[in-house]
Amino acid sequence: MKERLKEFAKIIKDLYLKGWLPATSGNFSLKVDDKSFFITSSGKHKGKISPKDFVLVDMEGNLLAGEGKPSAETLLHAVIYKCIPSASCVMHVHSPNSTVISRIVKDSKIYLQGYELLKAFEGIDTHEAELILPIFENSQDMPKLAKKVEEELRSASGLAGFLLRSHGVYVWGKDIHTALMKLEALDFILECELKLAIISGGMQ
Amino acid sequence: MKERLKEFAKIIKDLYLKGWLPATSGNFSLKVDDKSFFITSSGKHKGKISPKDFVLVDMEGNLLAGEGKPSAETLLHAVIYKCIPSASCVMHVHSPNSTVISRIVKDSKIYLQGYELLKAFEGIDTHEAELILPIFENSQDMPKLAKKVEEELRSASGLAGFLLRSHGVYVWGKDIHTALMKLEALDFILECELKLAIISGGMQ
Amino acid sequence: MKERLKEFAKIIKDLYLKGWLPATSGNFSLKVDDKSFFITSSGKHKGKISPKDFVLVDMEGNLLAGEGKPSAETLLHAVIYKCIPSASCVMHVHSPNSTVISRIVKDSKIYLQGYELLKAFEGIDTHEAELILPIFENSQDMPKLAKKVEEELRSASGLAGFLLRSHGVYVWGKDIHTALMKLEALDFILECELKLAIISGGMQ
Amino acid sequence: MKERLKEFAKIIKDLYLKGWLPATSGNFSLKVDDKSFFITSSGKHKGKISPKDFVLVDMEGNLLAGEGKPSAETLLHAVIYKCIPSASCVMHVHSPNSTVISRIVKDSKIYLQGYELLKAFEGIDTHEAELILPIFENSQDMPKLAKKVEEELRSASGLAGFLLRSHGVYVWGKDIHTALMKLEALDFILECELKLAIISGGMQ
Repeated sequence: MKERLKEFAKIIKDLYLKGWLPATSGNFSLKVDDKSFFITSSGKHKGKISPKDFVLVDMEGNLLAGEGKPSAETLLHAVIYKCIPSASCVMHVHSPNSTVISRIVKDSKIYLQGYELLKAFEGIDTHEAELILPIFENSQDMPKLAKKVEEELRSASGLAGFLLRSHGVYVWGKDIHTALMKLEALDFILECELKLAIISGGMQ
Repeated sequence: MKERLKEFAKIIKDLYLKGWLPATSGNFSLKVDDKSFFITSSGKHKGKISPKDFVLVDMEGNLLAGEGKPSAETLLHAVIYKCIPSASCVMHVHSPNSTVISRIVKDSKIYLQGYELLKAFEGIDTHEAELILPIFENSQDMPKLAKKVEEELRSASGLAGFLLRSHGVYVWGKDIHTALMKLEALDFILECELKLAIISGGMQ
Repeated sequence: MKERLKEFAKIIKDLYLKGWLPATSGNFSLKVDDKSFFITSSGKHKGKISPKDFVLVDMEGNLLAGEGKPSAETLLHAVIYKCIPSASCVMHVHSPNSTVISRIVKDSKIYLQGYELLKAFEGIDTHEAELILPIFENSQDMPKLAKKVEEELRSASGLAGFLLRSHGVYVWGKDIHTALMKLEALDFILECELKLAIISGGMQ
Repeated sequence: MKERLKEFAKIIKDLYLKGWLPATSGNFSLKVDDKSFFITSSGKHKGKISPKDFVLVDMEGNLLAGEGKPSAETLLHAVIYKCIPSASCVMHVHSPNSTVISRIVKDSKIYLQGYELLKAFEGIDTHEAELILPIFENSQDMPKLAKKVEEELRSASGLAGFLLRSHGVYVWGKDIHTALMKLEALDFILECELKLAIISGGMQ
């Protein structure tokens, strides 16, 4: 696990360099088993993260081991692991593209169509598919927000990720590599959508 | 060849850092002779590519040597090598600029004019020339798409590259350096065109 | 202190690489005690800065030690340290986002709302808060500009930073890390605001 | 001189990483004395440039020493050295900002006002100054273009640089550092102008 956290920290530092983790934003987790996962501790600058900046928590977000306070959004990670058994890595970033998109789309869902890169998501093997992402209203009440996310995850099977309004994006995968692949694909598509919105003066 | 694949992998990693190869997208090949070429194998993250991530295939896309599955788009590379004997390197990237441009140009061709950098393309020695790039509709049916590309390559001599709608761009050259030069020039021009489109509210 | 200036120089070089310190612009300081602080000396290229490029000055901006001329904007740093006792690090950058925003907002204040990243600022624990930043008209008369900034700092308690029109942004914090966190959060929010302004054709 | 060319090559590689030297574009020179200067040879990729990629030429652009062909734009550098005795370094880049700006400004001059960073240019000590840059129509006839540039340099004293339409920007300075400072300041200002043009739907 030490080696995987080291690899994870390296990837997080690269994401910081892309500008997706300004200030100390973003949080990242890695499942150990059905009862516990490692998550970045609160207030760490992601440009300098190392394995000791992760803490071990249970599925209710209680600290099991490590120094520091678990991320304020630990409950959202827990809910993803509980609802999606195949997920073993969760990534949450504050990319400018996802933040701006979440402010211009007034609806509670965003529909992505036609991109070859949709194929980065499980169950999609053609650009002719449609990827639907929920956008949740941001909230500081984590138990309440976690409940809303849980309801959506249970009702809409095969969800690829979600946005929090004016906040950022969550994706997950069966391992670090898969979660990263989805994150890159999603931000690429959102970057294209944002540029298209700029040209046409709003979301189409 | 080992040394050339090493140099190639280094260049591909640099292209990943530009944001042109999100997720595991993009594919790259290098001709060995008229009967075979090396191509990146499917599903590799281009930020970590190395010479062992290439496989050797024949001109029908069959695996000759190496571990892994040849890229899904191997047939497009093969068609380029068959139609353009001088080509010995093919690059395909998913840059945001080319993807967005391919969505706002409704036509099946894009016309690029007036740029000094047009001179990066063979046969062009003045900015007063016009570079015409076909845009093919994206398809998951590779043999069919390869056939369309082949028809275009045979009818329009001196083609510098092409776009796949909502997907990305293909260029080639007599060696890695020439293909890279064309790719950089093309993306630069498309970046300028996209900014101009943003200012004027659409393609001119 | 030598170690802290070394760490500071490293962070400044990273900010240069983001494009926030073009030419020799920007200046940075670190408080020693209530009577003195280190500040970058004038005309240094921030991509190559080292601890010896800082000079020690008193709270009137007089040189106490070191080689070189204190930054032309030393008085603005001094005024911040005098009005905000908890501040011990001041950062001033010329980011494109803050410069463009300061030109399109005609008012003397900018209002930032709804962003999760507002929580990077002291005293803000919800995205529902509003962050108000003054925009001062740029001036080459430093004593006069410093006086205006001082008046604002004394009247509006809890100020998080300010903009100078067509010039750049100032933020501060209790240490280097806190100042950097605010700077990154603020530029992120201004980047989003700028993209929203582009979509809607002006500031909302 | 060897050391200075080494330092110069390092700076050029950094400019390539900014995306200002796509393909093999851009050229750079360093004056030796009133009769000769070093200039990058034609067709070199600027991401891999080294001191051996410079050749020595006289003020008519004739090769004096070194391997390779002097840049096609050598005469423009020569004209700058002849008209501006204080210049000893000339930089020419193809930044997207300068290229796009040169296409949307239909006039033969661009007027830059109000930016603090104008102070990076000689003779300007306030943001209230105005910087005027000529925009020349691009041409493949170098002697003719050089003549036009010479006329402008002789008539408009204190010129800070110029643009070539759809091509790029030229700046110079008394040494490498000064030329770089001007280049960074100019591109920063053009980036801001371009963003303002995008918001308002054209140049103001």
